[in-house]
Amino acid sequence: MSKKVSIVDIANTLNISKTTVSFILNGRAQEKRISEELVARVLKLVKEVGYKPNSLAKSLRTGKSNIIGLMVEDISNPFFANIARLIEDRAYEKGYRIIYCSTDNNSEKTRDLITMFRDRHVDGYIMAPPREIEEDVKELINAGLPVVMFDRYLPGVDTDYVVVDNEFSTYNATKHLAEQGYSKIAFITFSSEQSQMLDRINGYKNALKDSKLKPFLKEIEFNRNEALIIEPLTAFLKKNQDIDAVLFGTDHIGTCGLKVIKQLGMNVPDDVAVVSFDDYDVFKLYSPPVSAIAQPIEALADNVISLMLKKLDNNAANNTTQKITLSTNLNIRESSLQHSKTAAE
Amino acid sequence: MSKKVSIVDIANTLNISKTTVSFILNGRAQEKRISEELVARVLKLVKEVGYKPNSLAKSLRTGKSNIIGLMVEDISNPFFANIARLIEDRAYEKGYRIIYCSTDNNSEKTRDLITMFRDRHVDGYIMAPPREIEEDVKELINAGLPVVMFDRYLPGVDTDYVVVDNEFSTYNATKHLAEQGYSKIAFITFSSEQSQMLDRINGYKNALKDSKLKPFLKEIEFNRNEALIIEPLTAFLKKNQDIDAVLFGTDHIGTCGLKVIKQLGMNVPDDVAVVSFDDYDVFKLYSPPVSAIAQPIEALADNVISLMLKKLDNNAANNTTQKITLSTNLNIRESSLQHSKTAAE
Repeated sequence: MSKKVSIVDIANTLNISKTTVSFILNGRAQEKRISEELVARVLKLVKEVGYKPNSLAKSLRTGKSNIIGLMVEDISNPFFANIARLIEDRAYEKGYRIIYCSTDNNSEKTRDLITMFRDRHVDGYIMAPPREIEEDVKELINAGLPVVMFDRYLPGVDTDYVVVDNEFSTYNATKHLAEQGYSKIAFITFSSEQSQMLDRINGYKNALKDSKLKPFLKEIEFNRNEALIIEPLTAFLKKNQDIDAVLFGTDHIGTCGLKVIKQLGMNVPDDVAVVSFDDYDVFKLYSPPVSAIAQPIEALADNVISLMLKKLDNNAANNTTQKITLSTNLNIRESSLQHSKTAAE
Repeated sequence: MSKKVSIVDIANTLNISKTTVSFILNGRAQEKRISEELVARVLKLVKEVGYKPNSLAKSLRTGKSNIIGLMVEDISNPFFANIARLIEDRAYEKGYRIIYCSTDNNSEKTRDLITMFRDRHVDGYIMAPPREIEEDVKELINAGLPVVMFDRYLPGVDTDYVVVDNEFSTYNATKHLAEQGYSKIAFITFSSEQSQMLDRINGYKNALKDSKLKPFLKEIEFNRNEALIIEPLTAFLKKNQDIDAVLFGTDHIGTCGLKVIKQLGMNVPDDVAVVSFDDYDVFKLYSPPVSAIAQPIEALADNVISLMLKKLDNNAANNTTQKITLSTNLNIRESSLQHSKTAAE
């Protein structure tokens, strides 16, 4: 019920000026020749009434807010939602609060959000960056603000980051499909020039080269309207009926892919084997369960927040950057096992 | 590449004091008797160098930040992740940015987040509130800060809110199961004293009463560790083997339920029919597809943001509150259709 107590209230109660109270609370009593007796009276009252200084005004003075800004691509994507949650938890344990936003992979929106965070005096920036914000990130770093990236990085910008070994992950998954006897293995993914997506394509292509197989690469433009993903995906699978296995580039396109496969009445894995990047409930509960490349989400979150806290603790002292690459886990399930026809031969 | 231009840079360039620049930029030139010629020179330079005033300092003066704070229960939950995304989109279109946090249904954390948002001068608060923050919300309202709740509301606090008709939704779903010939219908949900969860239990109980059936209510304590949800759920289903249908109270417990049902080797719907609150990809892609109570997520987001913008536009002028209840849609799929044995009779 209590209205928040202000400096003015304290000043009025003791019948002194609010400037005096302010000097005392900012540790400038001695400098301003304020008597020890008055300092003691003010501090006693502050404690009694539970006065808390306005932290925005405080952060304007000290430059510290104990808030970290987190920019993900799309909070409605389970990968980002889960990692955001873990980062928020870890940070909260350490006395930091996280405020987050979706960039939508839009560089203009991201720039706008960086400005907002900067104006709100966040202490550090954790981001899965879109392309074309290199200069904005460099500006943050030059201003001494810690930046940690995850999921992807910006080539040409020297920051801390935590990513997974995307190239080996898709190489390994493609090899697994080839070893199970599949020979027309497609890779269906969102078209992107981001580091993690290019690496995933490379891994797929290299595995096919090593297995002397022909690539079937289908890149689909991302769209918030799922129907506009389902449509080209359906057309591709209808046109390339000899494809016997598909590797999906992300959880989102994998989920769309399963919808199309179901709609077309194709059997998994007999008509088409399936592996997807990212592992989540949809894949675990599908019949048959879908093989998936699981990112180590907890370790990602832990490393991101450790790097950030190290930067925040040392600030200017620590100018070296750390680049961490974590391995993924290929969870092999029924959807990518040798199909019955081959097995029977 | 350009370093951000400050008021000091402008003052130095023109060889005038930074206070003079500040007076000019704040429209106090006339009051401070600053010559029109100097005002023109400052404004010209400001335009040339692209100076942008620090918006935090500005919001300290004007009290407007164009930022709305959004508090969800858990961002890793698909319902909250999707609605947060839609609210963020709608707000962005209207020139507002959203910063969000998870409350974890923890009143202490929520209080801490409210303080943070308040110190950061957010213009309004959108929240799916935990219990026991009634006084904190009243304080916001008394301070003239708009608050819009969704998903649930706090009895005894007069705010705008947007919810769904929880009681009718579970009444309807339970009736559907009874009409399909199921007679031992369980309701498995998280134990909670929140308005929406109490309403869901009431709807279930009333439908059973009207159908003259006995209730099997199982409330499980929420835990971040899924194993601690799976365990009591498994024990309940093992102990009550005569149950022939289950209604799950949320998407999360529904997903856990499907995992248990799969583990126990039970067939859906022959061994147990399934309906869940909330509709999402896991339920659509399950075999057989799972019947679900779909919340109108887009309409929820639209109404929340409309109410907020209306409050922000009118501010003090508009003291009436609006309480909006939206209907859900029961998407009937194979998981709750009359089972084959009954159908064959």
